[in-house]
Amino acid sequence: MLNNFLDYCRANRERHLEQLKDLLRIPSISALPEHKNDIRRAADFIADDLRSMGLRNVALVEGSGNPLVVADWIDEPGQPTLLLYGHYDVQPPDPLDEWLSPPFEPTERDGDLYARGAVDDKGQMLLILKAVEGWMKTSGKPPINLKVLIEGEEETDGAMLASYLAENGKALGADAALICDTEMFAPGIPTISTALRGIIYTEIEVRGARTDLHSGNYGGVAPNPLQGIAEILSGLKDAQGRILVPGFYDDVQPPSVAEAEAWSGLPFEEEEFRENEVGSSQLTGEPGFSALERIWARPTLEVHGIRGGFVGDGAKTVIPAKATVKVSMRLVPAMNAQKIAEAFKAHVAALTPAGMSVETTILAASPASLVSTESVFIQKGAAALEDTFDAKTVYIRCGGSIPVVGELQRYAGIPSVLMGFGLPDDNLHAPNEKFHIDNFYHGIEAVGRYLDKLAH
Amino acid sequence: MLNNFLDYCRANRERHLEQLKDLLRIPSISALPEHKNDIRRAADFIADDLRSMGLRNVALVEGSGNPLVVADWIDEPGQPTLLLYGHYDVQPPDPLDEWLSPPFEPTERDGDLYARGAVDDKGQMLLILKAVEGWMKTSGKPPINLKVLIEGEEETDGAMLASYLAENGKALGADAALICDTEMFAPGIPTISTALRGIIYTEIEVRGARTDLHSGNYGGVAPNPLQGIAEILSGLKDAQGRILVPGFYDDVQPPSVAEAEAWSGLPFEEEEFRENEVGSSQLTGEPGFSALERIWARPTLEVHGIRGGFVGDGAKTVIPAKATVKVSMRLVPAMNAQKIAEAFKAHVAALTPAGMSVETTILAASPASLVSTESVFIQKGAAALEDTFDAKTVYIRCGGSIPVVGELQRYAGIPSVLMGFGLPDDNLHAPNEKFHIDNFYHGIEAVGRYLDKLAH
Repeated sequence: MLNNFLDYCRANRERHLEQLKDLLRIPSISALPEHKNDIRRAADFIADDLRSMGLRNVALVEGSGNPLVVADWIDEPGQPTLLLYGHYDVQPPDPLDEWLSPPFEPTERDGDLYARGAVDDKGQMLLILKAVEGWMKTSGKPPINLKVLIEGEEETDGAMLASYLAENGKALGADAALICDTEMFAPGIPTISTALRGIIYTEIEVRGARTDLHSGNYGGVAPNPLQGIAEILSGLKDAQGRILVPGFYDDVQPPSVAEAEAWSGLPFEEEEFRENEVGSSQLTGEPGFSALERIWARPTLEVHGIRGGFVGDGAKTVIPAKATVKVSMRLVPAMNAQKIAEAFKAHVAALTPAGMSVETTILAASPASLVSTESVFIQKGAAALEDTFDAKTVYIRCGGSIPVVGELQRYAGIPSVLMGFGLPDDNLHAPNEKFHIDNFYHGIEAVGRYLDKLAH
Repeated sequence: MLNNFLDYCRANRERHLEQLKDLLRIPSISALPEHKNDIRRAADFIADDLRSMGLRNVALVEGSGNPLVVADWIDEPGQPTLLLYGHYDVQPPDPLDEWLSPPFEPTERDGDLYARGAVDDKGQMLLILKAVEGWMKTSGKPPINLKVLIEGEEETDGAMLASYLAENGKALGADAALICDTEMFAPGIPTISTALRGIIYTEIEVRGARTDLHSGNYGGVAPNPLQGIAEILSGLKDAQGRILVPGFYDDVQPPSVAEAEAWSGLPFEEEEFRENEVGSSQLTGEPGFSALERIWARPTLEVHGIRGGFVGDGAKTVIPAKATVKVSMRLVPAMNAQKIAEAFKAHVAALTPAGMSVETTILAASPASLVSTESVFIQKGAAALEDTFDAKTVYIRCGGSIPVVGELQRYAGIPSVLMGFGLPDDNLHAPNEKFHIDNFYHGIEAVGRYLDKLAH
């Protein structure tokens, strides 16, 4: 059975790649309203493909946003149900003049396929569907039960998916989700991401005098909210990067021994990372932790923008009556987002300088997610990757937050398996986005093997 | 002679007030290009007035900006030459809906004349000219030699005046300048400002990573220039408002005993000032100095704006590659602007956090100015005010900086006598700007008496 599947995939590589190119030619940019029609063309493209491979209940779920594409195969009693997630929308292609080939004319160069959406996420989404096709065409059915859920708003607000999951999450009856929207740690190293950091996003408004004042007449007596923000920020984090909010680190757990051991074996050189990825004269952050630990396993606090006063050209001497700063924190597993948000607000209030008042708004507060490497869905995913790439699977974490993972946990009660086939240099969200063509082929095989391994 | 002058002024009050209203009806807003024609109308109005009273060499000095109006009377051998300064341009009137009567329809209410430019500076400029008229009409000549110099760019960049003074400053042959563009400390209290603070205006650019980064993937390892700015600002000034730049206070002199004594007798209540003018819960600034000392006699450092990162609505998690902050310092007499600018740059460099680089640009650096109260031009001004208002003249300082004072000192080598007839509630630069009509009449008499006293 598996051999038939693999033979099919290998025999159809060229056709699968051409199909990916066809999908990439549709500029389904969710952030730009003028591409509304392209969004629909991409959704139809996927629905047609799902129908033609024989999946059931293929439909576009319509609502106030871009349609969700759904389908299923619930006909394998006693077998687990896997939710297959992906997204068909893409980022805008700007700046256009930095592309070596046009973003919506997929072009092969040196074993890579260049186009907007190549890796994020059309290529990685289609490889899941092509794995399903392989089983449908060779066995007439997939090895397990499937629910397909493809969204068209991942690059904007994901509102359609969030409300769909809030309403239908439990009814999906899925046991786990497969998401191919992340990266391999390095070429040839099969990778599963087991944790995402949570996020608290805040806005702090600091007020001083009743109206904007002139620094000539009031400098030295009127409170300056911009100076207040500087003092608050300096009191939130020390010069070494330790966060000073009381109790902030109380619930932080170190990575498991197995994780820590695995990370230390990854092909990662901090000096190379500093030079090639960050490009600053030094890396910063908490002493006593490696760069990977700081990104993956330690909570962080960053300031994103400060509004208020005068930022035009030249010299205006205003003391603004108020100023606002945006600050976010990334949370690691076991930290309670609500508790941290409250502690943050209290600490900001305590740091507020004399003569000023402060109001802290929490714009978002979601906890981190962590899937145990002991989970059978993870273990079998790792095995499928190892069979495909002939190399040991590494477990890494993501420093960022992927909203759908939290929503699937919250509304459907299921863990997500983040099996990534992108590469660190794939330029996602940037000009010259690409997908390594061999990773597309290997991804199809790996997902096909995964479905096979999940069957009892 | 003086009696004739005073009789003339009193008999012509109504006509002088009507003439001021005519001038106020011209919306000569220098910041708005669509008022170019009104600028010229205002300049012509003044030139015509100077001609009709019999001054000589009346002319518009043309250049790349708004014309300067010049005139003179150099025919009194052995007498001093006084430069008479004013400006005919006004601030924009926005927000229009807060005006109780239209800004360019001068309206009398309760002894005040409401209009844009009433006090700043058309009313105060015209009272100087009407004093000259009084002498011309009653004696056929002024008591001393005069140079008139009225500009039309005081509310923008003052470029025409600056280049005119750079070229002709020495040739003017003036001994001192009279500027009526400031305030009385309180109603009924004749006031001369003897010092202005200098200013250093700077822009600090802080750079971290090579490009903007995502805080999910790089938070905790990449330097954040906004956090760097917060640390720099916190290191420039302590929480009590003491400036931490090494050597900053080295040359700062306390006010003279006479000044300090005079200030302590002024009708000034810090609590009332806090409540009515600043409107914050507390006043801030250096401990051990009164609010007036902090504004007039102490140097200050203020932050005016921070550019970089994301300041739109919502939650974007960028770590900007660079950020910029605008910081100014007000200098008091005896501080060396160049020395302070260098010390500031060095201190900013020393405060720059690891992993970041910094570039500090000095946009402006001009020292404070101070006129001795022993100067005969000040002494006679004080006496003229006392004769007019029947009250003791107070000497105060200004926290702000008036560029023309520095330029007159630098290019013409002369001190300025800042004789102010505005009141603290005259709403300059704000809606419902006004001028107390009695101060207009008293101002004409005071300036007329001043010219008389300056004659040997």
